[in-house]
Amino acid sequence: MADGEGLRALRDQTAIAGIGYAPFTRDSGRTPLSLALEAILAAVDDAGLAAGDIDGIATHHVNDSAPVHEVAAALGLRDVTWYHEEFGGGSRAPAVISQAALAVAAGASRYAVVYRALNGRSGVRMGASGGGRAAPGAELQYQQPYGLLAPSQSYALGARMHMERYGTTSEQLGAIALQQRANAAKNERALMRTPLTMADYLSSRMIADPFRLLDCCLETDGACAVVLTSHARAADLAQPVVTLRGWASALGPDDLSKPGGDLTRSSSALVAPRLYSMAGVGPGEVDVAELYDAFTFSVLVQLEDFGFCAKGEGGAFAASGAIAPDGALPVNTHGGFLSEGYVHGLNHVTEAVSQLRGQADDRQVDGAAIAVCSAQPGISPARPRP
Amino acid sequence: MADGEGLRALRDQTAIAGIGYAPFTRDSGRTPLSLALEAILAAVDDAGLAAGDIDGIATHHVNDSAPVHEVAAALGLRDVTWYHEEFGGGSRAPAVISQAALAVAAGASRYAVVYRALNGRSGVRMGASGGGRAAPGAELQYQQPYGLLAPSQSYALGARMHMERYGTTSEQLGAIALQQRANAAKNERALMRTPLTMADYLSSRMIADPFRLLDCCLETDGACAVVLTSHARAADLAQPVVTLRGWASALGPDDLSKPGGDLTRSSSALVAPRLYSMAGVGPGEVDVAELYDAFTFSVLVQLEDFGFCAKGEGGAFAASGAIAPDGALPVNTHGGFLSEGYVHGLNHVTEAVSQLRGQADDRQVDGAAIAVCSAQPGISPARPRP
Repeated sequence: MADGEGLRALRDQTAIAGIGYAPFTRDSGRTPLSLALEAILAAVDDAGLAAGDIDGIATHHVNDSAPVHEVAAALGLRDVTWYHEEFGGGSRAPAVISQAALAVAAGASRYAVVYRALNGRSGVRMGASGGGRAAPGAELQYQQPYGLLAPSQSYALGARMHMERYGTTSEQLGAIALQQRANAAKNERALMRTPLTMADYLSSRMIADPFRLLDCCLETDGACAVVLTSHARAADLAQPVVTLRGWASALGPDDLSKPGGDLTRSSSALVAPRLYSMAGVGPGEVDVAELYDAFTFSVLVQLEDFGFCAKGEGGAFAASGAIAPDGALPVNTHGGFLSEGYVHGLNHVTEAVSQLRGQADDRQVDGAAIAVCSAQPGISPARPRP
Repeated sequence: MADGEGLRALRDQTAIAGIGYAPFTRDSGRTPLSLALEAILAAVDDAGLAAGDIDGIATHHVNDSAPVHEVAAALGLRDVTWYHEEFGGGSRAPAVISQAALAVAAGASRYAVVYRALNGRSGVRMGASGGGRAAPGAELQYQQPYGLLAPSQSYALGARMHMERYGTTSEQLGAIALQQRANAAKNERALMRTPLTMADYLSSRMIADPFRLLDCCLETDGACAVVLTSHARAADLAQPVVTLRGWASALGPDDLSKPGGDLTRSSSALVAPRLYSMAGVGPGEVDVAELYDAFTFSVLVQLEDFGFCAKGEGGAFAASGAIAPDGALPVNTHGGFLSEGYVHGLNHVTEAVSQLRGQADDRQVDGAAIAVCSAQPGISPARPRP
């Protein structure tokens, strides 16, 4: 197995030099290409660069997004030396960034932009059941006949098992939803800013037991982009330098919604030790965590699997106030997918950058110096339109 | 722009240690997953490894293939430390290999397998017109109404322009088809082994002027896989070491089928100088070229754009016999997509490895030490089912 020894040589060698957005809405009235361009140009400008400086370009998508060759052409790029278009949803945003970091570190690109643009509400909806066209031979054929048609259904199995095994409660899941909404109230980009009460949460309609409506992420039109470059080049640009200290990926047998594995565990349990090893930090040194939150339960499991609390104690940890901006581990300070918007992983990264720069306005976590961003480790058996 | 200086440090640092196949057929009667597993297990065995040694896994596909998480699960892998699933067709096979090489060089994976498995004839057919579902906002909306529905149609425009500008003839395109068929006759994996005459070629039915049936690649069920590792580890394995001397990618304004650009040029013209710079070789030192051949014309343009002959002279070069196994530059020694099978780029790589090992049997090019493999640089406006 790779032990991360080689990767440690890349610690802090690359940096995110710019971030940008297109507005988060429910009906953009624009193409994903248009959204991508707005976010990319904003990120380039934020870095103090011009579009023509970009020589690397990457994204991830399923069947819904602005492809790299169209974006490159629309930006007028005449010689893109590295590009990458990952097939996949929420699990892939940090992975694409780590691929870009490898490319930048190796010299394949000087300034690489990573973007995600989607009409996730007005166009292709990731959360929908049915309608998804299964890839030939995919394991979906063994699951869909039993009713596992939407991500909410498959992740609900893990949440229910976690409740049975560890005594996790609906109120603990609700605490995550409430905290993220409170965070979103301080975020002008957020789609959902009206504060929630526990009564609101508990009375929201059941989607897939134990998931209520307010356990489930939004579906959003919008875009995010980041510019990656070397640490050395970033130091000459417009913003405080935010380096990539480490990264890790994993596919393993246990994974929330993965049949046959332990549904109460995620691949984050495999990712965490490698991530901390490359970064040279432990969970106690993390100042802020932007954790993939397709569902409240996704956050709960990752609190455990990243070592912020013991296995089985994620619910109590979340409900204790530890995840609040003034708690031991502020989580999803932007409101996350549950309340800011669903840009498929990348809006967690842009928020982390804002926090580490000290530019998060009313949401700023005091002294934030180290952040963890995560992707959805589970493999949804209802992966949409593969 | 990235100048490849950093990349030169990675020259010869990684190696292809194993290759494997599943049979090339027109109707496999099996899932892409099953084909992928056969090819991967063969590649692992060829390298002298066991499946459990694999800790990296990557593929590329459109909407048709065995996804990495299913393949990893079916192989029983319990901790995949790097994975990558590229969205895209023929342009991406070498790109995925170069991403894997970056991951191996950085220490993210010790033994990474790259595979491509498809039922390209009995399942999702890449060459089909119509039926493709355009991604929202895609540029297809500006092309399909004018009848550019299939790859053969869009690449035909470039071929016709090349004929008008440089005097390229049908017989010169035919020389490529004939040579590749002659090569396939010596390859037991090849689907099409019956020798062709120029009369056969010229009388084959017109598909999209100037492309006849025999200008167009096959559609194939099948799979290929390769195992990547470090040069040092490869030296301890079962096969002669075949290193990766260099790689390069490019997106640019000119690209065969790319509207608005010069249709007689490909991105290979951008790739070539960077590739040769990283590898430290020039076109005159290349012993064998396995060039992406969705169409005969694709080969012709790449002969020019990789510098094997001057611009406009690709037709004369091909017809001169230079691309024969005993010529100045043996090309597509396996028969290529035109006659061996269409495994979307990866079967060019496996053939190059066989040649460089000296294991290509009757097809062996004497003293082959340096090979170039290429992907399809053009962006097809009829990219299937994106």
